[in-house]
Amino acid sequence: MDTNHKLKAKRHSLAHLLGRAVLKHYPQAKLTLGPAIDNGFYYDIDFSAGDMPGENDLAKLEKTMRKFLPIWTNFDRQIATETEAKSTYKDNPFKLELIDEIVAKGKEITLYTAGKGTEAEFTDLCDGGHTKNPAKEIAPDSFKLDKIAGAYWRGDEKKPMLTRIYGLAFDTKAELKNYQKERAEAAERDHRKIGQTLGLFTFSETVGKGLPLYTAKGSAIRRELERFIVDEEIKRGYLHVCTPDIANLDLYKKSGHYPYYKDSMYPPIDIDGEQFMLRPMTCPHHFELYKSKPHSYRELPMRIGELAKLYRYEQSGELTGLIRVRSFCLADAHIICRDEEQAVSEVGKALDLIEYIADVFKLKLDKDYWYSLSLGDRNDNEKYYQNDEAWEKSEDLLRQHLTNRGCKFVEVPDEAAFYGPKIDVQMRNVGGKEDTAFTVQYDFCMPDRFDLNYTDESGSDKRAVVVHRSSIGAIERVMAFLIEHYAGAFPLWLAPEQIIIVPVSKLHHQYGETIRDELMDLGVRVKLDDSNQSVGKRVRLAKQSKVPYLVILGDKEIADKSITAVARDGTEEQFKPEDFYNRLGKEIKNKN
Amino acid sequence: MDTNHKLKAKRHSLAHLLGRAVLKHYPQAKLTLGPAIDNGFYYDIDFSAGDMPGENDLAKLEKTMRKFLPIWTNFDRQIATETEAKSTYKDNPFKLELIDEIVAKGKEITLYTAGKGTEAEFTDLCDGGHTKNPAKEIAPDSFKLDKIAGAYWRGDEKKPMLTRIYGLAFDTKAELKNYQKERAEAAERDHRKIGQTLGLFTFSETVGKGLPLYTAKGSAIRRELERFIVDEEIKRGYLHVCTPDIANLDLYKKSGHYPYYKDSMYPPIDIDGEQFMLRPMTCPHHFELYKSKPHSYRELPMRIGELAKLYRYEQSGELTGLIRVRSFCLADAHIICRDEEQAVSEVGKALDLIEYIADVFKLKLDKDYWYSLSLGDRNDNEKYYQNDEAWEKSEDLLRQHLTNRGCKFVEVPDEAAFYGPKIDVQMRNVGGKEDTAFTVQYDFCMPDRFDLNYTDESGSDKRAVVVHRSSIGAIERVMAFLIEHYAGAFPLWLAPEQIIIVPVSKLHHQYGETIRDELMDLGVRVKLDDSNQSVGKRVRLAKQSKVPYLVILGDKEIADKSITAVARDGTEEQFKPEDFYNRLGKEIKNKN
Repeated sequence: MDTNHKLKAKRHSLAHLLGRAVLKHYPQAKLTLGPAIDNGFYYDIDFSAGDMPGENDLAKLEKTMRKFLPIWTNFDRQIATETEAKSTYKDNPFKLELIDEIVAKGKEITLYTAGKGTEAEFTDLCDGGHTKNPAKEIAPDSFKLDKIAGAYWRGDEKKPMLTRIYGLAFDTKAELKNYQKERAEAAERDHRKIGQTLGLFTFSETVGKGLPLYTAKGSAIRRELERFIVDEEIKRGYLHVCTPDIANLDLYKKSGHYPYYKDSMYPPIDIDGEQFMLRPMTCPHHFELYKSKPHSYRELPMRIGELAKLYRYEQSGELTGLIRVRSFCLADAHIICRDEEQAVSEVGKALDLIEYIADVFKLKLDKDYWYSLSLGDRNDNEKYYQNDEAWEKSEDLLRQHLTNRGCKFVEVPDEAAFYGPKIDVQMRNVGGKEDTAFTVQYDFCMPDRFDLNYTDESGSDKRAVVVHRSSIGAIERVMAFLIEHYAGAFPLWLAPEQIIIVPVSKLHHQYGETIRDELMDLGVRVKLDDSNQSVGKRVRLAKQSKVPYLVILGDKEIADKSITAVARDGTEEQFKPEDFYNRLGKEIKNKN
Repeated sequence: MDTNHKLKAKRHSLAHLLGRAVLKHYPQAKLTLGPAIDNGFYYDIDFSAGDMPGENDLAKLEKTMRKFLPIWTNFDRQIATETEAKSTYKDNPFKLELIDEIVAKGKEITLYTAGKGTEAEFTDLCDGGHTKNPAKEIAPDSFKLDKIAGAYWRGDEKKPMLTRIYGLAFDTKAELKNYQKERAEAAERDHRKIGQTLGLFTFSETVGKGLPLYTAKGSAIRRELERFIVDEEIKRGYLHVCTPDIANLDLYKKSGHYPYYKDSMYPPIDIDGEQFMLRPMTCPHHFELYKSKPHSYRELPMRIGELAKLYRYEQSGELTGLIRVRSFCLADAHIICRDEEQAVSEVGKALDLIEYIADVFKLKLDKDYWYSLSLGDRNDNEKYYQNDEAWEKSEDLLRQHLTNRGCKFVEVPDEAAFYGPKIDVQMRNVGGKEDTAFTVQYDFCMPDRFDLNYTDESGSDKRAVVVHRSSIGAIERVMAFLIEHYAGAFPLWLAPEQIIIVPVSKLHHQYGETIRDELMDLGVRVKLDDSNQSVGKRVRLAKQSKVPYLVILGDKEIADKSITAVARDGTEEQFKPEDFYNRLGKEIKNKN
């Protein structure tokens, strides 16, 4: 049993212990299911027949768990007949439903008892996976009841709402404390919280859920990111295009996307009897543009890029800040290649670009992000386009390419796109969950669907191969990530306000305006705080906003024709204005 | 009778003459209506009972017109009874319908006859407006039959399709020739034609009508325009924001736009039982953003700007290149002001910005563009928000402001927005038609609808005044305009390809790549033409593409470590690469 399995067994055992504690204090409660989870365990319980615990009652339950834990020296496994089990749980419709399911599957019904013959005795319907001796193996200070939430029975909103009690559990007290500390820090860094504090974006119920409205400050970050990626891609030979955000439904039927994507597409808009869709992806748009004229082998690889606004359905309960939204802007591209070799070379260049961007944000490969190779399934022709030979060849080529790059990567079966295998760039978000940030996909299906051809050296038509890739991903997601990554203290080039000018008194306002106007003319995002609050207050406010440079102007500065700049790290320096402007220019250009 | 009326009378008389000629050659034709138009006249005719003329038959008809013209020395007016008129036109259901309408209106039925008693004799149902003596007043070489097109009877697609024969007519032959020449030049400059030749944009039937797809070249122009306007507005204190392109229908009901705009909005998209609309305007989005937190008088005027994608319904027959599209991107802004005085001052600043932009494109006020003051109608409370006092005051303030600017302007009654008067910036498009390019609108209605308030110096709530304005208008339209304005020969900063490098032979390819890479690193849009066509052919192709600079690289340039640049005007100059790059940088920055 490896470490992970051991920890999972402890967490599962603690869920039983929580069940016991609940029944002591709330004898009318009906237990349902109590599994181990990533950071501990929970138990879903129906309290509708009696009292219901609140957050304040968690301490009491936890105390009872600690009291009973030393008594639980083993788990006793019994096999029960359907009749026995149903009699035991005759008052609990949830457990009865579970028993029916076990019977239907033809499995054994097992009951586990701990603390037999003591006041801590507790039996639960369960298929095992506990520690042998909880009293010995579980440190009493390694767990903590965390919070109470609502949860539908079997996650189905049409079924009864239960009460879920969450517990945190780790191997040691130190690990528990560490997790709590990291979680508190993460909450502080949550992009929704920082976004609110710094005034970067907002939501309006009248406009609609999952549709962020970016303030000028938030838009400044967006704009910098968008220009950065567009300019960088153009330098790398991308052809940046603009295609419409809506298109005739026929386009997605032609591309073959419709059956795979229709559940995440919004309903059609009828225009003069034709059905138009908010686009969920850019591929067919780029292919139509490619096909608007014939192409020669000399033009390939043709890297068609776009900052494309996309629309995908998300349930309202799933919408989360800027991470899960109903409309987002993807730095998307489709690279039309001559053949497999050119396609793999382009996959490499796409990864180079991703690594360059990651480097700008000071993210390290194999540490902050890593590659994963998502493969198809030759036996599943419903999920994947059928062409065994092409799958074999492209998976081999991508595997070979990643091996040649000398980076670590994991292979994940059955996670490819329907049109080919892909390389996913994985990262952990602030919550610690692994997530796909960017993806580079190999496609041997669309070229057939769209007749994506070119004329080769001998003048005959050849079928192209396509690489789909995102470089910086969705602007909304990368913004959320960067807000959390920098905890709002953005580097100068991204900072929504780059400079705040604080004139010491009214005597210095005019000089402040001059400096502000000069900076605005240079395209620097600058604010002059000439409000009538004290200079101390204004400096404090500026620092709270995490502005990279604070410029203070008083008598001395006017006399010297200088400015005093205070950097975010507290460093204070006096400059001639031109020197300061030059320094800003360099720092912005270098994206430090 | 002024000159225009005289010319109109000639054109109308020529329509009669065309009718006569048609009946000579096509005796089964049924004439319907034949009015004078801007450049001549037309006659809509039902040829379904017999032969139908083609473009080749126009010469024959024209010849007959010229033959009959000298015979037409007067128009003879007779009043007919309903019975007489209906008997005359008993076989012509179109004229019968017209007679019924005249009778229903209680008007006199008049018939006009020319060439009485001659082979040229012709009578038509008509309410007058002819020249007294066509033979004398109309020069036989001052008109020309132009083209044949289809047209529905009364412009209604549910009614029969007729054949429309167009004629051009002016006072003199010279004026006719001049018009034809200008029209041919305009056709050469047509943005659809140049857009096609230079490969700037395309349309796809599969994607949908009125939804342009911009190539990388077209997108480069868009991007330059977008960045130019955003950066310029930010320098002028605008807060550039990003708000969603779709919103709940309730938003437009709340703003009061819905009843006025619903015919130009696309049908709603149902998301989880809520109705979402593709937005037709930005106003309510910006107001929601403004209202997301309280504001002090110190923050006003607050200039909220956005490059906003908008969707407005256009009938498919109205769609025209980039000028009439179904989705466009407006450089929109809403300026929240403290009071009327601040609002008018902001109107002035908005006009300053428009004049600055026009100047960049070398357009002169009062010559290339002019202002028009669009007023409301106190008696029409259905079309306009009712508040007589506010209408009076704001119209006076705008009138006063335009007078103070010292520019010419015309006042146009009954052309205001529903929420207040506006100043329209008028221009002629290449076709010569006057059109509103940009608009600055005064709004005293939305602040009430949205409770747009601020806290004044004494701490109490005050109602704001709003200015709506576009600076550069819709990016699609301004692109169409600029393509025609420059006839595709864009200034360096806007040119989709700024430099084309032509290495003389294969020996010079490597040097060409070096120069290309250096230019790409500087963000210059450069193409290396290393195809195996002759150097002469490649130079010719580059010149045809109207590239601002052509760079030629041969032995001499490699030996000197130099480049030879040929400007669009033919000027040839040798440069050290760095000097050339500096020159390009300056020219781009100055937007020359």
